[in-house]
Amino acid sequence: MDQPWTHRQRPERLERRIEFADYETTRVFLERLNDLSEQEKRYPDISFGRTYVNLTLRPQQEDGTIEAVDHSIAAAIDALLP
Amino acid sequence: MDQPWTHRQRPERLERRIEFADYETTRVFLERLNDLSEQEKRYPDISFGRTYVNLTLRPQQEDGTIEAVDHSIAAAIDALLP
Repeated sequence: MDQPWTHRQRPERLERRIEFADYETTRVFLERLNDLSEQEKRYPDISFGRTYVNLTLRPQQEDGTIEAVDHSIAAAIDALLP
Repeated sequence: MDQPWTHRQRPERLERRIEFADYETTRVFLERLNDLSEQEKRYPDISFGRTYVNLTLRPQQEDGTIEAVDHSIAAAIDALLP
């Protein structure tokens, strides 16, 4: 159902769009993502509606490039999916 | 701290950006907004990061115009602010 992460430039970022079956599933994912964000102190930019979530993950290193630590967070987010 | 709602065209929508002092305040607002969405069955498009939330409210009447019922939801959202 989902696209993988896309590595974009200017500014450097990872992006992913995820579609959900219903609002409840969207909510459960957002709650898990919240817990992960607080635990890891990483706050992706999140856009969502009733049945979708768009994520933008900027480099941990401000003004830096996407590195292993960022791909690691992306993978941790993927692991939250139903 | 906040801009009022802006009524935009093509497509018709109300938009508002809200800034928060910290992630905890942002989270509390999003939780309240979630409760309101489920209660009213209105799901604005929401973009947020650690300390901001952008809201887009489309007409309740699909392909319709912004009407009193939409302004009423906007006001209900405003009432959720700290």
